[in-house]
Amino acid sequence: MYQAIAYGASSAASRLAYTTIQRREPTAKDVQIEILYCGVCHSDLHQVRDEWNSVMPTVYPCVPGHEIVGRVAKVGSGVTRFKVGDLAGVGCLVDSDRTCPACQQGLEQFCPNSVLTYNAPDKHLGGVTYGGYSDSVVVDEHFVVRVPGNLNLAGAAPLLCAGITTYSPLRHWNVGKGQKVGVVGLGGLGHMGVKFAHALGAHVVVFTTSESKKEDALRLGADEVVISRNANEMQRHAFSFNFILDAVSAQHDINAYIHLLARDGNMTLVGAPEKPLALNSFGLIFGRKSVSGSPIGGLAETQEMLDFCGAHNITADVEVIPIQKINEAYERMTRSDVKYRFSIDMASLKVE
Amino acid sequence: MYQAIAYGASSAASRLAYTTIQRREPTAKDVQIEILYCGVCHSDLHQVRDEWNSVMPTVYPCVPGHEIVGRVAKVGSGVTRFKVGDLAGVGCLVDSDRTCPACQQGLEQFCPNSVLTYNAPDKHLGGVTYGGYSDSVVVDEHFVVRVPGNLNLAGAAPLLCAGITTYSPLRHWNVGKGQKVGVVGLGGLGHMGVKFAHALGAHVVVFTTSESKKEDALRLGADEVVISRNANEMQRHAFSFNFILDAVSAQHDINAYIHLLARDGNMTLVGAPEKPLALNSFGLIFGRKSVSGSPIGGLAETQEMLDFCGAHNITADVEVIPIQKINEAYERMTRSDVKYRFSIDMASLKVE
Repeated sequence: MYQAIAYGASSAASRLAYTTIQRREPTAKDVQIEILYCGVCHSDLHQVRDEWNSVMPTVYPCVPGHEIVGRVAKVGSGVTRFKVGDLAGVGCLVDSDRTCPACQQGLEQFCPNSVLTYNAPDKHLGGVTYGGYSDSVVVDEHFVVRVPGNLNLAGAAPLLCAGITTYSPLRHWNVGKGQKVGVVGLGGLGHMGVKFAHALGAHVVVFTTSESKKEDALRLGADEVVISRNANEMQRHAFSFNFILDAVSAQHDINAYIHLLARDGNMTLVGAPEKPLALNSFGLIFGRKSVSGSPIGGLAETQEMLDFCGAHNITADVEVIPIQKINEAYERMTRSDVKYRFSIDMASLKVE
Repeated sequence: MYQAIAYGASSAASRLAYTTIQRREPTAKDVQIEILYCGVCHSDLHQVRDEWNSVMPTVYPCVPGHEIVGRVAKVGSGVTRFKVGDLAGVGCLVDSDRTCPACQQGLEQFCPNSVLTYNAPDKHLGGVTYGGYSDSVVVDEHFVVRVPGNLNLAGAAPLLCAGITTYSPLRHWNVGKGQKVGVVGLGGLGHMGVKFAHALGAHVVVFTTSESKKEDALRLGADEVVISRNANEMQRHAFSFNFILDAVSAQHDINAYIHLLARDGNMTLVGAPEKPLALNSFGLIFGRKSVSGSPIGGLAETQEMLDFCGAHNITADVEVIPIQKINEAYERMTRSDVKYRFSIDMASLKVE
């Protein structure tokens, strides 16, 4: 074991603060990564504040962070895919059972025994796993992905969660050229959805409640922007979308968007609103439409996504912050006051 | 024009009663059918009582019925697929525009200009179309299907709506051997879903709230029956279904069934509850599951379904009634007091 430095919370009511944690020495298949940037996901905030108590109660101290980009500092004797000095990324998972049907199909995100990057039982050291708000992390190489060298690293970090969460459903539903694709909710997830759908060749329409986001949506790759409060504008797009990515985490009317789907169209929810949504069955029936959900992606698809980003020079739009501003960043996130993701410059951690 | 006899309602508050209506003489492409049986669908009741006023207001007099089986009595000069004496069926549609993408793909059920069998503008005679509670009907041959001669005709009538509405989604979602399929709601639609899923080779599980339906479900083709109020029994089936057909028209908890879907599983709603259903997005996300809707089928698929029924000797379980009992039948339907569909013996109409 070695001591790593980190930022963590000691209770649901605590602000995040400097702390030290134990990491395991790399075993044969492990990669030790010096963390350079860590994206800030809404999940971090929910977990730190124990807002998911009913399904995933938080164990304290809690060190969040699952959008990790860094450089390989050490490798175990059996590691074949990484060497010291490589750029590497770690997302939401650090382990799985490797034997279930999902794992065998490279869909580790659906493994019933997957291990989350933080706040999950740590079978190496006991206690729980600690995430990326730290100077270093040790992860089995199967759960480490390569980060293309041409990418801005601060902007690459959010690809590990916000990126794959939007890329995966677009690929699963075969979004591409000749298709009309909608993106609802222009935040951390949504802005990645726009970039990916555009790069995949689709005609991209962004829905927003706020006129002020129009220009930015077009800059990100939207072909059209619809102000969703304008009923006439919405009606002009009725029955026309092949696919809609719904990245809204607040309560909202999904039926208004189902109405815009073409026959056999699909709307996939990635925003996970806390309370149930009202679903009008007639809207699905007349057009054989469907509503789905999608979590992150598997390791193979996460690598595919990063390679795609490398080829198209896609990263998240980030505001880089020192770790000392993380509590303020959380406050701003609750007000959606960020374009479009915070990325922590982990060099700041060494200043303390 | 010629005069046909029928049963219809003269207002939303009226009981159905004997009446006469005008039918067109068959044009070149028309088939005139002597109606032998007409199934009684919940839609008939809703339309007659003007319960869909906001979307499809009822025009009176209203003659419902879209589960029509009969014998060809006359054919137009250009009719190629039918001759006098053939058994023939007519379902929910009697026309469409034939030129839209849906029509060109044989998916007339999605044509924006389709013409319903009753209460739709009649472009031949003006007024509205009149359905199958009548001794005869005239329909373009494209919207007439062949009824296999080995089928019980009273039981075959409901295939034209209840049958195709359940067969179509099972086929669309590729239900077959090696799959575990659930059917929720054992009524007119659900009992057909059980028969079809069984005949397609799936392992069929029926969900019901009532212990009393267990034996019947097994007789219809279910491999297992789950009492949905028993949480333990439900939990045993968590994450295991490839497909669930939800034929419930009352309010109910769809999240409990989404929980039972395996990864990438689909639940299709055909029951069309009036009010929105509560949809838990987490249930869809963790498993990449989907909820869909499905209406009837196209003409080609309706014929395929009837041929499948002929090959497997599948018909609806019906209670045959004379037309004079239709008002009583409606009352019983509102109490779900029918196993599983009423079928009107249209010979009774000639007695009046």
